[in-house]
Amino acid sequence: MGSQSDYPIMKDCEKILKILKIKYQVLIVSAHRTPKRMFQFAESAEKNGFGVVIAGAGGAAHLAGMIASLTTLPVLGVPMETKKLKGLDSLLSMAQMPKGVPIGCLAIDGAFNAGLLAASIIGNFDHKIKSNLEKWRRLQTQSIKKKPK
Amino acid sequence: MGSQSDYPIMKDCEKILKILKIKYQVLIVSAHRTPKRMFQFAESAEKNGFGVVIAGAGGAAHLAGMIASLTTLPVLGVPMETKKLKGLDSLLSMAQMPKGVPIGCLAIDGAFNAGLLAASIIGNFDHKIKSNLEKWRRLQTQSIKKKPK
Amino acid sequence: MGSQSDYPIMKDCEKILKILKIKYQVLIVSAHRTPKRMFQFAESAEKNGFGVVIAGAGGAAHLAGMIASLTTLPVLGVPMETKKLKGLDSLLSMAQMPKGVPIGCLAIDGAFNAGLLAASIIGNFDHKIKSNLEKWRRLQTQSIKKKPK
Amino acid sequence: MGSQSDYPIMKDCEKILKILKIKYQVLIVSAHRTPKRMFQFAESAEKNGFGVVIAGAGGAAHLAGMIASLTTLPVLGVPMETKKLKGLDSLLSMAQMPKGVPIGCLAIDGAFNAGLLAASIIGNFDHKIKSNLEKWRRLQTQSIKKKPK
Amino acid sequence: MGSQSDYPIMKDCEKILKILKIKYQVLIVSAHRTPKRMFQFAESAEKNGFGVVIAGAGGAAHLAGMIASLTTLPVLGVPMETKKLKGLDSLLSMAQMPKGVPIGCLAIDGAFNAGLLAASIIGNFDHKIKSNLEKWRRLQTQSIKKKPK
Amino acid sequence: MGSQSDYPIMKDCEKILKILKIKYQVLIVSAHRTPKRMFQFAESAEKNGFGVVIAGAGGAAHLAGMIASLTTLPVLGVPMETKKLKGLDSLLSMAQMPKGVPIGCLAIDGAFNAGLLAASIIGNFDHKIKSNLEKWRRLQTQSIKKKPK
Amino acid sequence: MGSQSDYPIMKDCEKILKILKIKYQVLIVSAHRTPKRMFQFAESAEKNGFGVVIAGAGGAAHLAGMIASLTTLPVLGVPMETKKLKGLDSLLSMAQMPKGVPIGCLAIDGAFNAGLLAASIIGNFDHKIKSNLEKWRRLQTQSIKKKPK
Amino acid sequence: MGSQSDYPIMKDCEKILKILKIKYQVLIVSAHRTPKRMFQFAESAEKNGFGVVIAGAGGAAHLAGMIASLTTLPVLGVPMETKKLKGLDSLLSMAQMPKGVPIGCLAIDGAFNAGLLAASIIGNFDHKIKSNLEKWRRLQTQSIKKKPK
Repeated sequence: MGSQSDYPIMKDCEKILKILKIKYQVLIVSAHRTPKRMFQFAESAEKNGFGVVIAGAGGAAHLAGMIASLTTLPVLGVPMETKKLKGLDSLLSMAQMPKGVPIGCLAIDGAFNAGLLAASIIGNFDHKIKSNLEKWRRLQTQSIKKKPK
Repeated sequence: MGSQSDYPIMKDCEKILKILKIKYQVLIVSAHRTPKRMFQFAESAEKNGFGVVIAGAGGAAHLAGMIASLTTLPVLGVPMETKKLKGLDSLLSMAQMPKGVPIGCLAIDGAFNAGLLAASIIGNFDHKIKSNLEKWRRLQTQSIKKKPK
Repeated sequence: MGSQSDYPIMKDCEKILKILKIKYQVLIVSAHRTPKRMFQFAESAEKNGFGVVIAGAGGAAHLAGMIASLTTLPVLGVPMETKKLKGLDSLLSMAQMPKGVPIGCLAIDGAFNAGLLAASIIGNFDHKIKSNLEKWRRLQTQSIKKKPK
Repeated sequence: MGSQSDYPIMKDCEKILKILKIKYQVLIVSAHRTPKRMFQFAESAEKNGFGVVIAGAGGAAHLAGMIASLTTLPVLGVPMETKKLKGLDSLLSMAQMPKGVPIGCLAIDGAFNAGLLAASIIGNFDHKIKSNLEKWRRLQTQSIKKKPK
Repeated sequence: MGSQSDYPIMKDCEKILKILKIKYQVLIVSAHRTPKRMFQFAESAEKNGFGVVIAGAGGAAHLAGMIASLTTLPVLGVPMETKKLKGLDSLLSMAQMPKGVPIGCLAIDGAFNAGLLAASIIGNFDHKIKSNLEKWRRLQTQSIKKKPK
Repeated sequence: MGSQSDYPIMKDCEKILKILKIKYQVLIVSAHRTPKRMFQFAESAEKNGFGVVIAGAGGAAHLAGMIASLTTLPVLGVPMETKKLKGLDSLLSMAQMPKGVPIGCLAIDGAFNAGLLAASIIGNFDHKIKSNLEKWRRLQTQSIKKKPK
Repeated sequence: MGSQSDYPIMKDCEKILKILKIKYQVLIVSAHRTPKRMFQFAESAEKNGFGVVIAGAGGAAHLAGMIASLTTLPVLGVPMETKKLKGLDSLLSMAQMPKGVPIGCLAIDGAFNAGLLAASIIGNFDHKIKSNLEKWRRLQTQSIKKKPK
Repeated sequence: MGSQSDYPIMKDCEKILKILKIKYQVLIVSAHRTPKRMFQFAESAEKNGFGVVIAGAGGAAHLAGMIASLTTLPVLGVPMETKKLKGLDSLLSMAQMPKGVPIGCLAIDGAFNAGLLAASIIGNFDHKIKSNLEKWRRLQTQSIKKKPK
């Protein structure tokens, strides 16, 4: 994530990763304020055993796109809500990546779903995670009551 | 894709999948006009050997989200440009998925990048595809001239 | 409605349906989290005696459109306000349906008006409802004071 | 419709009404330029045998809402594309009706779907129209090819 | 104004009209809920001695435009802030009037400025109002401190 | 108007002013490129016999607002369509004037309506113009055919 | 800045200017309410020793653009958040300046960054400021923790 | 600039730089496709004698912001028009930079103005450029005709 202030939202991601028993690391890496840290992180992510990178940032949100420019791992972007434009700026800064360097963009503040999508991606080759995800999805479906109260 | 008219854009996806030697199938599956076909496709996609689903649709673009509701495969959405609102409607209809059912959203008309992101996802467990992707990315970087003409 | 959290708004709909003495059923049916429930509901709605379906959902709001894809009953959509984009996402996800599968879209959080429009539709063949609606509209007009206080 | 210039789009509505054998009348009634004609039309629409009113208008599109203020018939609005704002102005001018006077809003330029929704509404009490609509929807579904060309 | 709930904002208008000693009348006239009252008001406004009409309304804000369709008095519109779309809907519903029937649109919630603009219009033929306006403008300019505190 | 390139649209204004026999002067006055000319124009407009100022400008459209800051004549603004943002930028730059300095904003490219609104304003004290305007409005209403062709 | 109410945000600018030891003057200059003060300020800014002008204003924010029209000093604009449109109006009113008169636009409420950009500009010829800025940027980078808490 | 396709617009910048006799270099540096070239360029720009960096990019436009993260030179951003969202995405991706790393954002496709603003910045310490800029601005003002043709 780009800053400490993104953590309250990105914790949603941690929550589902824990539930699904996916190993993860939480780091603050700012494209703008720590560009070299970002470069080092992105260039060594694969070597360091990451399978998916989830990047949350807001406003002129360049983090996910810049990481994607430096790795061929799948990169998922979480556009963070912003105080003024409500995350529309973050969403367009992430979703509208140019041809050649993709990121998969989630909803504004969609940190929880980023974890779920990472699970889908990892589930392609890790049957344990796949089965955890399937179980969680089944439980989710069952938890939806038929009538409101 | 949701309709024949999406094909000119979705061909960009085919192009990169071919270059990277990823096996794929191209189908027209409309969430609204062929909902049962969509259900059957989504429910059997994994069993039928799909590793990633890429769904392109426009306007009130429900295809990617509905497929994601019926499978735990990673689903990538390509919001198609629309004549009136230029794809802003498609983008919001895809990106703003509710908690619990994620899709990875690409740029408006970002079919080419959807193929690249699928390659990243598959590259996690298929070294041949990984290496094809890395090679393509290197060539892309080299192809960018230093000065415009 | 798509989730329990939509109920505070959808209660406005209940309120006018009760006033106009229209029989109704309130159900939670999520296009994304309970897609099969949604299918079964939509496919059997007519057989089960529904004359109009009112679907409230927010964000990438696919519920109304998916129900409309599975029935020829009139389907009315209520785009729910969302925390980030204030319901603009919901509105575009509902209003911009593709050619061939219509929904009648109300205002953001327009649950009350959805009930009134349902009454208009039912009033076409049920004179009691028609007369209740006409009476309610007259009373509404009379209740508007000439000067503010 | 509000003006002669809306006719090329509103013809889509005529087309489906003809296919479904729904009787209709096509009139130019401008809320702004012929307000009295609009009043007379709206106030006498029910008496004149209309079951549904479909109003297409663009920009500050007041036609559908004003008709709805003067009748308890179901009123469907078609926000027309505008040259500058692409119909976003028309959409908001129609969809965002205040509590108490509803219209069912279609997509921008969604005249065809307005006809289909009118058929759903009329189908509630006219079995011939209902069956024409069901047949048309079945044919539509069958016409969607499985693969693009 | 269209409803009692618009009064807290429209009071700003009253305030400046009082300061400038312009005679005025405050009425609730809803285009949608009291269309006949609106017609009668608009058609008789000139005869009743009005020189300018200021109409405040929100959402699908048709009041100003409909009054303008029924009188040749200058009509000023105040698009009211709305809870969901912050008045963007009101602004487009007012500003984007079709060719042939103009309104002069103020800022969202710009009721105070509507009073000032009315004063400019009336000042064209009423020297007392003109001089009150000029004085108020001078005082306004003088009241702006050179440095913030 | 702010530039020669605005003239094709502002000619619509000339057209109706001629029809209604309102005397006018057409000037290019750019807030940004000729700020002193703008100052001189605005400060002397009243003395020079102007009764209403109509200012057309596009993008960051400051012309109408700046003229309004320098005169107590009624100022009408025509936000011009822009190539990129279609005039949404012009509209917001004009409509959203701060408290204390009003302009009456027309539709994007609404030059014709600006002329009509000026006629309404002038009609308050010039009976000849008033009667020309009323006649034009009557003819407009009569010219709207009942059925499209 | 355009008004006293802008000061809470513009103080962020003061803060960084003080840290970087850049001499500055804080003035209230409203384009609309004190146009002559604005003219005098802008025309004499260079003579009075200013090297950069930072203008913060909101809504139809004309201040930065008008100052830029009257000086060849670099002018930076800070679009202020507005209550209704969240500063989108301010941003477009500042950023979309016409060809020939530039301003450098910061983020909505980006007063702090305006100070930093001014430091970059001044740093081009003032080595002390340059070195203060470089030091501040290094400290900023170092202050970003590696992990959130 | 980020790609060859930006050159037709960025040529506007070259044009004014030539007129004002400012030395410049034109390079293609893509944040996403050539991230290392971007890093090297940005880190050595000052050492290589640049006084201002002008970065033009479109869509999720990260180039200007990333360069600003790696240098303390003033960085100006030109958000390029995009086919779908008309440059609104580019504008928000550039303007909404986070606190700590500023760029000065020009209008969409505002390459010409970027050159003029660079001239203002350089003019602070280079009297020749200053005087060229002042002369150009004077000529611009004189070139604006008083009446359109």
